[in-house]
Amino acid sequence: MSIIKASVCTIGDEILIGQIVDTNSSMISRALGERGIKTSRMVSIADSRSDIIGTLSNELNNNDIVICTGGLGPTKDDITKDALAELSGSHKYVRNDEQEAIVHQILHARGLDVLDINLRQAMVPDTCEVIINHRGTAPIMAFCFDKSRFGHDAVLYAMPGVPYETEAALPDVISHISRHFSSEPIFHRTLMTYGIAESALSKQIEQWEDGLPSDMHLAYLPNPLTGVRLRLSVYGAGDDAQRRVSEQIEALKPLLGDYLYSDSDDTLEGTIGRLLRGTGRTLSAAESCTGGEIAHLITTVPGSSGYFLGSVTSYAPEVKQKVLGVPAETIENNGIVSSAVAEAMAEGVRKLTGSTFSVATTGWADAYGDDREPAGTVWVGVSGPAGTCSRRFQYKADRKRNIERFSASALNFLRLQILKYDLSVK
Amino acid sequence: MSIIKASVCTIGDEILIGQIVDTNSSMISRALGERGIKTSRMVSIADSRSDIIGTLSNELNNNDIVICTGGLGPTKDDITKDALAELSGSHKYVRNDEQEAIVHQILHARGLDVLDINLRQAMVPDTCEVIINHRGTAPIMAFCFDKSRFGHDAVLYAMPGVPYETEAALPDVISHISRHFSSEPIFHRTLMTYGIAESALSKQIEQWEDGLPSDMHLAYLPNPLTGVRLRLSVYGAGDDAQRRVSEQIEALKPLLGDYLYSDSDDTLEGTIGRLLRGTGRTLSAAESCTGGEIAHLITTVPGSSGYFLGSVTSYAPEVKQKVLGVPAETIENNGIVSSAVAEAMAEGVRKLTGSTFSVATTGWADAYGDDREPAGTVWVGVSGPAGTCSRRFQYKADRKRNIERFSASALNFLRLQILKYDLSVK
Repeated sequence: MSIIKASVCTIGDEILIGQIVDTNSSMISRALGERGIKTSRMVSIADSRSDIIGTLSNELNNNDIVICTGGLGPTKDDITKDALAELSGSHKYVRNDEQEAIVHQILHARGLDVLDINLRQAMVPDTCEVIINHRGTAPIMAFCFDKSRFGHDAVLYAMPGVPYETEAALPDVISHISRHFSSEPIFHRTLMTYGIAESALSKQIEQWEDGLPSDMHLAYLPNPLTGVRLRLSVYGAGDDAQRRVSEQIEALKPLLGDYLYSDSDDTLEGTIGRLLRGTGRTLSAAESCTGGEIAHLITTVPGSSGYFLGSVTSYAPEVKQKVLGVPAETIENNGIVSSAVAEAMAEGVRKLTGSTFSVATTGWADAYGDDREPAGTVWVGVSGPAGTCSRRFQYKADRKRNIERFSASALNFLRLQILKYDLSVK
Repeated sequence: MSIIKASVCTIGDEILIGQIVDTNSSMISRALGERGIKTSRMVSIADSRSDIIGTLSNELNNNDIVICTGGLGPTKDDITKDALAELSGSHKYVRNDEQEAIVHQILHARGLDVLDINLRQAMVPDTCEVIINHRGTAPIMAFCFDKSRFGHDAVLYAMPGVPYETEAALPDVISHISRHFSSEPIFHRTLMTYGIAESALSKQIEQWEDGLPSDMHLAYLPNPLTGVRLRLSVYGAGDDAQRRVSEQIEALKPLLGDYLYSDSDDTLEGTIGRLLRGTGRTLSAAESCTGGEIAHLITTVPGSSGYFLGSVTSYAPEVKQKVLGVPAETIENNGIVSSAVAEAMAEGVRKLTGSTFSVATTGWADAYGDDREPAGTVWVGVSGPAGTCSRRFQYKADRKRNIERFSASALNFLRLQILKYDLSVK
């Protein structure tokens, strides 16, 4: 079976002037890669009719599949659709009723009038096949070309450029591709770790990695907020790929210990949800330096209302005292960023909400600290049925990244304390 | 003076498989744009000799400047330098002493031995001019081609792919470009709007847009979280470009009314900071469905500790009652997602923290609602010295995006109420 080649093209002046970073291309190439399709090139071009037609024709000449995103909006600077009509030899636009119904729905939901330019979104060149866009007004268009045009069968997909819409429509595009092209699957499994550096991790699992069969490949994907993701892949995988990968994964797990938090692609906050959901146990949070980020992460998990009671962001010291009941002396004697304050905050919010567990943060996210703790320090407190404890973490990034890292460290510390408690009562 | 055209090429398998997102291209195109050089294309290609030579030749055919990054490392998969030697007709490598000294320095600082493959980094094809890389071992190479090769003068720059090194070397590359090409600058101005859809906005300013001089271009950049960004540009701008753009911007502003929140590139939370900072006025928040996202956004603004006192995330109804003092009857009579509850939450947290203003949210972020309000509904309450008010917003996304949109709508509603109050006391 020969390798299917794809090109990913992003269209939009905002990319070329560097105003936005293109994240669609990597999202699309990852999805193609999972189906064994190789991305040969990525190209970004301006909202220019001649550039669009010239580039897409060239990419279609050299690839089996071309996926372009962007330039499908309703305003004058969005010209991709007209360029595609020309490229595919269409002289007529036709209405797609299903997409038009979605245009009405979306605008009504936003309380907006449906204008002519909105309805035009549901009109497509008669040379394309429509894949419905459920999250936006512009449908996805698939143009199939036979050998007479580019010397080989080729399909061009035009997707909207808003990443939220691209992401949602991608599975439908991949299914469409699977129906047109057959490729050998790649089989992946992912493990999530937190709290160990890539280099230390690679040393810890060196022997296991050296013993992997030659058709399996391990990738390390480090991320400061989610930890190091390990992905084990088999290319051109046969029927037994799933079993063979699972066996390797089961051998790897004990080597990872507490660092391992998910053997699927879950997040730290999702893992905490898994530990609490359906157990009748609840959670609350008290945040100072993280300013709401921890509560935000926890509540992005569907079903979090079943265990998350609420949180207090106590930016001002008076809120720490008045709402959370942290004694003024505790702050004065230990400093606002201290083990004692983190623990008092955790106990305060646990009492206030009546939750089973609570997590609290106090730290210096900015470029300054005080005479007790330097910039980039956070104290995390966790309170639960077995008592209260705290731990200090230290980072050296800017305000925004410190807040994100503090939050990830706090969630992981909370996860470890819940695990410890679960072991103690078993 | 004609416009100088550039192409930015990134080289590396890790980009094409979607393992990393390319941020170099946007960084480079922004730097070029500031010098009035237009990026016509961005291309990402694999570590393949034929792809590198083919693509770079093609880009040099169509552009004055080509900047490529990546593939200059010491390992076997980095083959850019050999490909460039072939492309430029070099048969000989020469040592650059200054770069070799840096190779020694860098490896010594890391406590590593200097190997042959490291020293090879300081060897370059004799067809190039070297720009020293102070942060890494691989020098930047500049290849100048005269008209005989591509029909016009063209320069190819090869830069390292590590963003930290690319960023540091970029000013030297830009100076080199400035010595070879003279270009007229591009002048941009950005306006931020919220609360009006792209299509409605384009209708509202149609007459103004139609009257723009032919050398000015308006781009609409919609984003569900920050609203529609409007960017007005003049290419090949003369000395009066800044004045001419400013005149157009001043004519546009009144047409945008309250939708306009920033005439620079600020965020909604940054704009609120601007309204409060240094005025002695303070802010608090009470969040239900947004789960901490509003507090998080507010506290990402540097200096927010000067006006933000804190917030309560009241996920459980008991927290709404106990901490925020929302009467049980208010919830029972009106529903948990209601104007009355949003207003009571805003008043509750304002009283609790003693802040000047407060903002509160209660809504259904998930796929379900109740018999009073459907999924995707949020009620936002704002309380301040002039009283309390509320407004309803409706979206139709998934949980995560609903939370983000609810938060943006709440921040904008808060902004409008602060503005209204400021007008009333003037």
